Formats: sequence, C-alpha cells, structure tokens
Amino acid sequence: MKEIEVHELKEVKLRSPVMIEGLPGVGNVGKLVAEHLVRELNAEKIIDIYSYHLPPQVFVEKNGLVRLVRNEIYAWRSDGLDLLILVGDYQSVTNEGHYKLAETFLDIAEKYGVSKLFTLGGYGVGHFVDKQRVIGAANDESLIEELKKYGVEFREEEPGGGIIGAAGLLLGLGKMRGIKAACIMGVTSGYLVDPKSAQAVLKVLCDALGLQVDMRALEERAREMERVIERLKEIERAQSAELSEELEYIR
Amino acid sequence: MKEIEVHELKEVKLRSPVMIEGLPGVGNVGKLVAEHLVRELNAEKIIDIYSYHLPPQVFVEKNGLVRLVRNEIYAWRSDGLDLLILVGDYQSVTNEGHYKLAETFLDIAEKYGVSKLFTLGGYGVGHFVDKQRVIGAANDESLIEELKKYGVEFREEEPGGGIIGAAGLLLGLGKMRGIKAACIMGVTSGYLVDPKSAQAVLKVLCDALGLQVDMRALEERAREMERVIERLKEIERAQSAELSEELEYIR
Amino acid sequence: MKEIEVHELKEVKLRSPVMIEGLPGVGNVGKLVAEHLVRELNAEKIIDIYSYHLPPQVFVEKNGLVRLVRNEIYAWRSDGLDLLILVGDYQSVTNEGHYKLAETFLDIAEKYGVSKLFTLGGYGVGHFVDKQRVIGAANDESLIEELKKYGVEFREEEPGGGIIGAAGLLLGLGKMRGIKAACIMGVTSGYLVDPKSAQAVLKVLCDALGLQVDMRALEERAREMERVIERLKEIERAQSAELSEELEYIR
Amino acid sequence: MKEIEVHELKEVKLRSPVMIEGLPGVGNVGKLVAEHLVRELNAEKIIDIYSYHLPPQVFVEKNGLVRLVRNEIYAWRSDGLDLLILVGDYQSVTNEGHYKLAETFLDIAEKYGVSKLFTLGGYGVGHFVDKQRVIGAANDESLIEELKKYGVEFREEEPGGGIIGAAGLLLGLGKMRGIKAACIMGVTSGYLVDPKSAQAVLKVLCDALGLQVDMRALEERAREMERVIERLKEIERAQSAELSEELEYIR
Repeated sequence: MKEIEVHELKEVKLRSPVMIEGLPGVGNVGKLVAEHLVRELNAEKIIDIYSYHLPPQVFVEKNGLVRLVRNEIYAWRSDGLDLLILVGDYQSVTNEGHYKLAETFLDIAEKYGVSKLFTLGGYGVGHFVDKQRVIGAANDESLIEELKKYGVEFREEEPGGGIIGAAGLLLGLGKMRGIKAACIMGVTSGYLVDPKSAQAVLKVLCDALGLQVDMRALEERAREMERVIERLKEIERAQSAELSEELEYIR
Repeated sequence: MKEIEVHELKEVKLRSPVMIEGLPGVGNVGKLVAEHLVRELNAEKIIDIYSYHLPPQVFVEKNGLVRLVRNEIYAWRSDGLDLLILVGDYQSVTNEGHYKLAETFLDIAEKYGVSKLFTLGGYGVGHFVDKQRVIGAANDESLIEELKKYGVEFREEEPGGGIIGAAGLLLGLGKMRGIKAACIMGVTSGYLVDPKSAQAVLKVLCDALGLQVDMRALEERAREMERVIERLKEIERAQSAELSEELEYIR
Repeated sequence: MKEIEVHELKEVKLRSPVMIEGLPGVGNVGKLVAEHLVRELNAEKIIDIYSYHLPPQVFVEKNGLVRLVRNEIYAWRSDGLDLLILVGDYQSVTNEGHYKLAETFLDIAEKYGVSKLFTLGGYGVGHFVDKQRVIGAANDESLIEELKKYGVEFREEEPGGGIIGAAGLLLGLGKMRGIKAACIMGVTSGYLVDPKSAQAVLKVLCDALGLQVDMRALEERAREMERVIERLKEIERAQSAELSEELEYIR
Repeated sequence: MKEIEVHELKEVKLRSPVMIEGLPGVGNVGKLVAEHLVRELNAEKIIDIYSYHLPPQVFVEKNGLVRLVRNEIYAWRSDGLDLLILVGDYQSVTNEGHYKLAETFLDIAEKYGVSKLFTLGGYGVGHFVDKQRVIGAANDESLIEELKKYGVEFREEEPGGGIIGAAGLLLGLGKMRGIKAACIMGVTSGYLVDPKSAQAVLKVLCDALGLQVDMRALEERAREMERVIERLKEIERAQSAELSEELEYIR
C-alpha cells in the first residue's frame, strides 16, 4: 500500500460539480450533514481513499464482513447541479497526513473541474446552545457575500482558534490552486454529537445549492439526542444534590 | 538496518498453508494461542522480522544473552495441513508501521501460497466474563459460514470499535490481495492476560483446522490466573470495607 | 505541497541585512518584539513559508477570509541598516520539522547575505519578575562583547535548560555555516504573555542596532497585562481565603 | 543538515579499541561513568554527531557560547588498551532515530575495528538500594563468562523489561554485525541520578579493562547525593507527620 491510495471505483462525468466535505470533527456536525446528503440523494460512491495516515483499523459491518477504515467520495448528478461528497471514518492521525490527504482531495476536485467547495463542521463553544447559529469562513470574498444571504454569519476572528483539519486545510490549500471554498460551521457545545446543529448547517447548504432534501431523518436523530441530553442533565442534578447532602454530614 | 528487515532462516516447502497470526493485543489472547500452538506442535522458526517501527529494545533471555525485539514466523507441516504461525514481542509503535508490517506479513503469505489466514485476538468488554464466547469477523463470506459451524458468533457491528492492529489490517489489506482471512476473538475483560479466553479461541481454531492439540499448558495457566483474580477481588473487598470504616469515622 | 514551501512574494535588494527572529515561544516575548518592529517600521513582507510541520490549520481574519498558518519574512531598508524579520503563527510541531525549518531560514539568510542574526525569546523563571532583566547567548564571542555593552547579561549555563526551538537552533546550525548569531531573552514568569519583558528586549535590540522605534504600543499592552495580573492575584487571594473558611468548618 | 551528521574532528589510529557507551538513561549511571572516564583519562574528542532525532535545542556553556545538542565520541590510547568512549546530551526522541543512531555508532565501531563494546546503564528497581549490585547482559557467551569474574550478575530474564535505547540496541544490532557487546548495569532506584551505582559500574569496568582510574570525583558526588537523599527523607517524614495530625483534627 502506498502512503495514500486512491481507488477509483467508477468513472463518472460531472459538470462543474460542487464538492462537499463532511469528515468527522467537532460534534460530528459535518459528518452528519454529508452522510445525510449521501443517503437522501442516493449518491453513488466513485472513490475509496486508504492511507497509513488513517488509524490501523477495520470496521465490522452488519454481516460480520470487515472493511479497512477509509475516506470516500460520492457523486450525484441532477439537472441543475452535480455534487461530489467527501465522507469518511476518520481524519488523518498524523500532522503531515492532514496536509497530504487534503492535497489528494484537491487533486480529485481539480480532476472533476469542481466549481466550488463547501467544507462542513462544528464550532465548539463549550456550553449547550439554545439558538442555532451557523458561522462561516471562506478563501474568497464572493463566497462570503453568497453565504451571507442564507443567514451564515461572518465574524471578526471567529472561530478564534481557527479551523483545524480538512475543513480548514481545503480552504487554505484550495486558495493556492484557485479553488473557491467556504467552510460552513454549526455552533455546538462540542461535548456531544449534535444533529440539531447539523440540521441548521444542512438548511444553509441546501439554500445555497438550491437543493431540496428531506430532513426527517436528522430531525428524528435530533429528538433522540435531546432525550439523551435531558437524561444527562437529570443525572447531573441528582449527583449534585447527593454531593450537597454528603457535605452536610461532614460539616 | 532497513525500515523492515526480513531474515529468512530456512527455506521450507509448504502446501497451501493456513497462516495464523497471534501478536500481542487485548488480553494477550491471540499471543497465548499462537505461542501455545508453536510449542505444542513443535513448529520450526523460518523467519525473523526486525523493524524500527518496533520499540528500540532487547530482551534478556534465560542465560543472560540478549535478542532484539522482533516478530517471528514458524512453519509446521503435517499430512493434511501445513501452517505458518506469526508471533512476536510487540506490534508496531507507529501508525505507519502497522500498515507496513501488515503488508510485509502478507508478502510472506503470498510467497508461500497461503490458502487462508486466521488472525487471533481478544475482544475487551470491560467486565469479567463468566461464560466464554468467541466472536468473529472476516473479509469473505465463505469463512463466516465455515466458522459459524464451530460456534463463532458473528454479530452486527461487533466489536463496535472495529479491530485495531495486525488482527484487523491483515483482513482489510488481505482483501485487496484476494487473501481470504478471518479474525477469531475471545471475549475477555481486557484488564488482564486471559488464558481462559485463549482456550476458547484455541478450541475453535483446532476445530476449524481439524487439528488436535494438547491444551493442558493453557488450562494450567488459566487456573493460575483464576487464583490471581481471586486474590485481586479479595484485596478489593478488603479495601472497600476499610474505606467504609473510614467514612464512618468522618461522619 | 512540498514538506516546506517557500513562497517569494517580492524580490528585494538588501545590503548585509541583520536578520531578526521572533516566532512564538515562552511568554511570546520574541513574537511581541518582532511583530512590534514589523508594524512600527512598516516593513514589507517578502516571503511566506508553509510546511506540513506546522499545524493543519487556517486562521480566520477580520473579514471572514482564511489563511493557512505560516511563517513570514519581512524586509526593511533604511540608510544605515537593512533588516529581515522572521515572524509566524507557530513553530514546528515535529522534532524533525524544527531542524528543517531552521535550515530553511538559514538558507534565506545566506541568500540575502545576512551580516548577523538576532533571535528573540523569553526565559521562564516560574515566578513573577519585578525587575526586568535581559540575558543572552551567542555562537560567537564578538556578539557577546557587543551585547554586554547594552546591558545583556551572559551567565554561566543560563538558561540552565538550554534554548529550545528556532531561537536556539538558528544559533547552533548558524554556527555550522559561519553565520554569527545571538539570542536575546527577556526574563519572564513563563505563565503569561509578557509585553513588559518584550519592552526590555526591544530596548536592547534597538540599542544594538542603533534603531529608534516608538514603544508606546508595547507600553500600552504592558499596562493592560498588569491589570490582568492584578485581577488574577485578587481572585487567587479570594479563593485562598474561602478555602481557609471551608477548612474551619470541617475542623 | 542530514538526518544524522557525523563530524569527524580528528583522524586517530587505534589498535582494536574497546568501545564504551554511556548516554543518558536510568539514574544517569552510564553517563556518569563514561563522562568520568573521559575526564580522568583526558580522552580526546574525535567525532561529533548531530541529528534531527535529537531535541531541537542548544546548550549554553560557561562563557555564554551555545552548542547544538549532540552525541560525542572520544578516543584514548595507552600501551595496552585503546578506548572509544561514546557520550552525549540526549538519546533519540523518535523510535526510528534510536535504531538509526545505534547503526551510526556501529558504523564508527566497525571503522575503528572495535574488538568489543561495553554499554553502561542503570537498572531501576523502584526503591532505594542499600547494597550495590551490578547486573549484565551480552550478545555473546564469552563476554558473560568474562564479566562474571568481576562480580557482574547474570540472572534469568533480568532486567525483566529488557534493555531500552542505545544500551540495548548496540547489543542487538551489534550481534548482526558480529560485534561482541555486553551491557553493564548498576542497580539503582531509578528516581535520582545515582553516582554510587555509577561507582560500582566503574569498578567492574576498570577491572574488566585492566584500567586504573581515580574515583574520587565520583565518590564526592555520591556523598553529595546522599545528603540530598537524607534531606528528601526528612521532608517526607515531616509531611507524613503533618498529615497524620490533620487527620486527627477531622476525626
């Protein structure tokens, strides 16, 4: 196996597709959105990417069959819009691998004549979020103007710590190749997988692409997650009550 | 020394051997089984593998002589069945090395015309296990059918975290080369070396290979380990009793 | 992208410039001084350096536009003195990258015929510092004699732990190429960004270069930082008082 | 700079020298012995080794001059015995570097026609040691027999965890080249620099080499260290007394 191995499963012809990246990250927001798109659009897998910068691991699928961890690219064609969707099990586990995999993704983007690239992610703020917000960053001003129309906020130095991993590198390295790219981030606690934030990001993305996608699966997952959070809060309250009681005894 | 150095100690002729991997891992289940086989079958070492992806370390043997840490391949021939058994001191300590060593093992498998490959391991569940279970995963459906006959369970997405290291990679990378491979895992706590789980795995493996092996050495080790666990539980009970007493005082 | 990519933005002619390094480090002393110089002298950026030894990250700038993390070299020309100033977001995150980036900086220094090199840093002593001190180290005795005149102290084996990162490597590797270099370090607590220590270093540097630079921006930042420290000390006092009270209850 | 750079400072002619390795390690036992030998024998430095597997760091020497961290080889000639002594600031910080630096040391050993190699180290047992013991391991039985005469103990699988770093690799990799090598280890707590253990190792080494070396410098350091340990024990006793008192209050 080479350092990075690109297995092309199918040749497809796409017309200036938009590339969408949704690899695992903060709150798995990007991954939830991109995988939802793949399922709802019934997109077709055209590329598998393996690399020794990914963990040395296989996953067991439903029937007991294994597969090596990987990144995948799906294609979708429609009358007005073609898409390339990048999803995967992991991002690189090495510093160098992050850069090299991002370059590989951009090579593929160039090969298919991508017109623009949206990377999806979460922006962790360290507390539970009541009102959904979506913030953005881009390597080109035209995309900033475009996304502002759909409610994406562009703030001075937000996120303050920058954008780490593929969602950021595809913008930075894409700029060097003249590929217009923006990152769309759902504000999230950063503690848990956040399908609600993913919904907000998906809405913006669909608006920007002029795309209509059934959101019920994400909505259902968001409701499940809310029940989990409610339960976590109850446990926390119970524990804190118990702790106060203990302290009473000692005092 | 090269990145990976394969020292062939002996040329042997094998007829479509089955390859068995038992490197260190969860509960050392795979290692216990493979080393038991090497000893009981009196298999012959044919290859030493050194690599700077293994720790920079030597071991001191009984007579004070040292040897570099390594992986080893043993061969065994019989009328109906030939085996290649892979054991070793460590797995790779680098991400990249895991992939590269697995490729090296597969190169050797191909050179000897391996008919199928069994990787052995433990599946850590985080609590002591009363009833021994053996679960499996494979890169080919025929092996799943075959192993089910011997009581191996194939469950939906189990193990949930996938299979990490050589036991997994040999399946994933083996698939790319058309080598049929299955992983046989003994369910174990994951806290301690587990010869009892190793016994269960060995039994399945022997059934699948039509092999008869004396199990007494493993049984003896399992009994020793049970005494260790009993002692650990006593200490734990004593400590917890002591702690309650202390709390009485404070309250 | 190559391992290290040097993007020359502009060709400039410099006469035996002095190179100044101020990458992030202890108390960010060096970075504060070098960035202050770039701003006050209105130096011109001539080189961007990208590398996969830097974190896989982009920063979001005021307008929502991103840029890849990088190291930068600025040039400044005046009648009596030309400067090359090296600043950046990060130092290497890999051991090897530290050496390779330092070599790249020295290649640039040689290309421009640098006459000498000053690296700037902080020397963390683990407690708040009342009286500002500046200590030095060099790869050539003539620079030690020169800097002593401006109040830089050269002490036996100080800093005891040596100098880590670019500030040290440029001296050590520079020596091998015959480039005279000294490191000027402001003594600092090592806990916080320290603009006051930066002021002391800047003063020495300006004296050594015969340069006049407006220091008000650094002074203002030092005053802000003092207010932060005052507040931190208050919180600490309050917490320690509260803790004593709690202990009273228990006793 | 290359991955590993060998700077030969002086050509010397040696007659089948014995090579001695004393790089930093457990209790710094090996380093103390080797540096003591270099000083007392007034050995001459012939080689500097630099590498980006060593930390990115310079040390400041007495006069304020810096030098890059490095490994060094000294030569010493006498009527009956020639020596090559390997000392240094650090061992490799990468797994791969450990192997590559050890190979470099062996290349030098071969170039000078080394007759045998002694690596020096400490064997940490986790408690203070009253009676000094020296244990050994070797890659050749003749060296085991030789060292036993001087009181070196060779025990079954001791040290149990093997020997890590240069002290072990030079034996393991040396064996592959036919270089006879033994490791001489002083038993030590592993908590502190241990000049007393170093004395014991030095004594064995001198006996084995038929060498007479003034030990007073090491003895003086051992006495200093004992005062440090005495002081540490007092502090510990005081703290434990204080803790008991506190608990009385609460109870």
